[in-house]
Amino acid sequence: MSDDLNRIFDAIARAARAGRTAAARLSSAQKSAALHAAADAIGERRDEILAINAREKAEAVARATSPAFVDRMALDAARLDAIIVATRIIADLPDPVGAEIRRWSQPNGLQFRRVRTPIGVIAMIYESRPNVTIDAAAIALKSGNAVILRGGSECIRTSSALHAAFVAGLERAGVDARVAQFIVSPDRAIVGGLLEGLGGAVDLIIPRGGRSLVARVQQEARAPVLAHLEGVCHVYVDKAADLQKALAVVVDAKMRRVGVCGAMETLLVDRAGADALLPPLAAAFAAKGCELRGDAAARALAPMAAADEDDWRREYLAPILAVAIVDGVAGAIAHIAAYGSAHTDAIVTEDQTAAAQFLGEVDSAIVLHNASTQFADGGEFGFGCEIGIATGKLHARGPVGVEELTTYKTIVIGDGHARG
Amino acid sequence: MSDDLNRIFDAIARAARAGRTAAARLSSAQKSAALHAAADAIGERRDEILAINAREKAEAVARATSPAFVDRMALDAARLDAIIVATRIIADLPDPVGAEIRRWSQPNGLQFRRVRTPIGVIAMIYESRPNVTIDAAAIALKSGNAVILRGGSECIRTSSALHAAFVAGLERAGVDARVAQFIVSPDRAIVGGLLEGLGGAVDLIIPRGGRSLVARVQQEARAPVLAHLEGVCHVYVDKAADLQKALAVVVDAKMRRVGVCGAMETLLVDRAGADALLPPLAAAFAAKGCELRGDAAARALAPMAAADEDDWRREYLAPILAVAIVDGVAGAIAHIAAYGSAHTDAIVTEDQTAAAQFLGEVDSAIVLHNASTQFADGGEFGFGCEIGIATGKLHARGPVGVEELTTYKTIVIGDGHARG
Repeated sequence: MSDDLNRIFDAIARAARAGRTAAARLSSAQKSAALHAAADAIGERRDEILAINAREKAEAVARATSPAFVDRMALDAARLDAIIVATRIIADLPDPVGAEIRRWSQPNGLQFRRVRTPIGVIAMIYESRPNVTIDAAAIALKSGNAVILRGGSECIRTSSALHAAFVAGLERAGVDARVAQFIVSPDRAIVGGLLEGLGGAVDLIIPRGGRSLVARVQQEARAPVLAHLEGVCHVYVDKAADLQKALAVVVDAKMRRVGVCGAMETLLVDRAGADALLPPLAAAFAAKGCELRGDAAARALAPMAAADEDDWRREYLAPILAVAIVDGVAGAIAHIAAYGSAHTDAIVTEDQTAAAQFLGEVDSAIVLHNASTQFADGGEFGFGCEIGIATGKLHARGPVGVEELTTYKTIVIGDGHARG
Repeated sequence: MSDDLNRIFDAIARAARAGRTAAARLSSAQKSAALHAAADAIGERRDEILAINAREKAEAVARATSPAFVDRMALDAARLDAIIVATRIIADLPDPVGAEIRRWSQPNGLQFRRVRTPIGVIAMIYESRPNVTIDAAAIALKSGNAVILRGGSECIRTSSALHAAFVAGLERAGVDARVAQFIVSPDRAIVGGLLEGLGGAVDLIIPRGGRSLVARVQQEARAPVLAHLEGVCHVYVDKAADLQKALAVVVDAKMRRVGVCGAMETLLVDRAGADALLPPLAAAFAAKGCELRGDAAARALAPMAAADEDDWRREYLAPILAVAIVDGVAGAIAHIAAYGSAHTDAIVTEDQTAAAQFLGEVDSAIVLHNASTQFADGGEFGFGCEIGIATGKLHARGPVGVEELTTYKTIVIGDGHARG
């Protein structure tokens, strides 16, 4: 590795360590005031940020970047307002740091208290979505952590301008700007350094983006990773489903927003009730312009294209829905175990026994009964915010909010206790 | 990679997946009965196991293995009894699986329940300590997980015999033996396969052993790792310490067992009280045959050898103690931040303000006030068991017992709820 690169890594690591100490020592009031000041500062620089984004958007369009990609990197007044509002919501959340998780004692008189503490330094590696810059910085700070932000190159100047406004607000509130570093250099080797953990300075890496980004991070990381993988989400409509509820749930699960990780990608219908249930469900999707791809049994009941094996594993993120007929709740559980991504899956039924079996046996981060998979969202959980839905099993599973970005320590109080 | 090795990995992965499903479906009563049956079976094979261990011990001695190493791999009647007792204690612990962590609701009527679930497949990679074979298998099963055990080669036949008895007990209780696999092959490439995660079959890797084993695992692992690193533990004796409590705490912290990860390795004494405190503390260690290595200020107050910079980072695991004079609680916190391993650190003081500052600012898994660092133990925490003290910040921090080997999922109950 070049000396230049090593010097850059050292500088980032040193600043991160200083930022970690500074962030951990902030009081609840200081964090809240600093985040409101950051929101103010972003608002004050609104025109500058939007102008930078307009230039980057034009450059992306000139490179013939896909419209969906350009849409994700684009800011307008409403989206900038949403970023500011989100920052204020996070500012006003309860402080997770220092909160008592559990208190107990032992017969020898020792008193135990488990309290939440910051994780330390979080490296956030994400694609070209400017809002992630501020969401991640705000959630990390609220949790008492320092953050190193590395955003996608297509809107790196937008993200950098957002970050500059954010830390200008923090500094105005008396907070050390090193709590939130932004990597401006386009050198991809810097991502390599972050994945190596900057010589032990990085406590946690969070990738946000497509499958290839997350896969690279998981492959190369030498620090713990909190991964947000794809959502191949299912809704199983049981023979004992109420058709009106089923219609409300499945249409919302697919069509409310087709591009989110909690969107339904496969509809499973109970063979025993499919004659009655599938035709109206299929008609509802057809009316909404959603393409259906079904197995042979589904195609016998409603007009749709043929699904192949690959369709059961696809995260379409588009108005396309795979449809399979399964043998009851056990068949649904088996299909989800074989093809699902352990993100979010739902059952629609009035049969409490079937619901209990599904909720118990489907091993996904979120399992729902008679509710849309699109409730897979930190805000809908009441967390006030999220930086994603963690799909791993360690540390946090499901929406990652401010509590999920903390760890804990155990405080033990004695009176000269020796174990003896 | 050879086809043979790929076939072995496939076979292990297939069995682990089957074991995971079987383990997750066991009821609390089945798990408890199975673990008692396993304890019975180990007892029944006591003579055979001890004879195998005696042969392996003799072979190790013949290879001029260090006495400390031989001691760790050795079994006798008392140690075998302890293994059996530990298994029964784990059998009788409350079942963590299915336990409700939290319950809440949202204004739209959605009901949320977060419940503990098994992690899945745990790969345990450990050195030549036969008791770890059974502790890990029992704790994993109690938590509803499948485990793949890979123990140190020097007592692999002892561990294999213990494992064989364990699963014979499980099978007698009607439990699928694939919940606990033991890798008998000495081929070190198999560890490589486990670290690669067996093509996604491994959910968590837990290394138990020396620094080099843990470092290799952290470097090569492609699945999440729960690491148990060294304990460079400190006791800080403040100027406001009660001398009798200080004597009781520090002598126990160092001398109760010098070879455990919770043993104190560095004694920090407040400069403001060192004249009065250090001489009696040093005399107590001298009387116990503990070698002291101090900085210049400490050497001016009591007879001891000179410590060098390296001593502050050492985990002696021996009757050797580093001694430093620090400037009050802030000096102690700074020393621990610079040299500690974030495992377990204690303060002795009657000053509640100093105690609160220490407990708040020392960022270690366990922080104690007026109590010995040797309380860093799952049993002493009331967990009934542990497979180690996790020193990372993610997922679990401190003693890892049955709860720490679970994850959770969130169950959401609606009534036809669409997000809309």
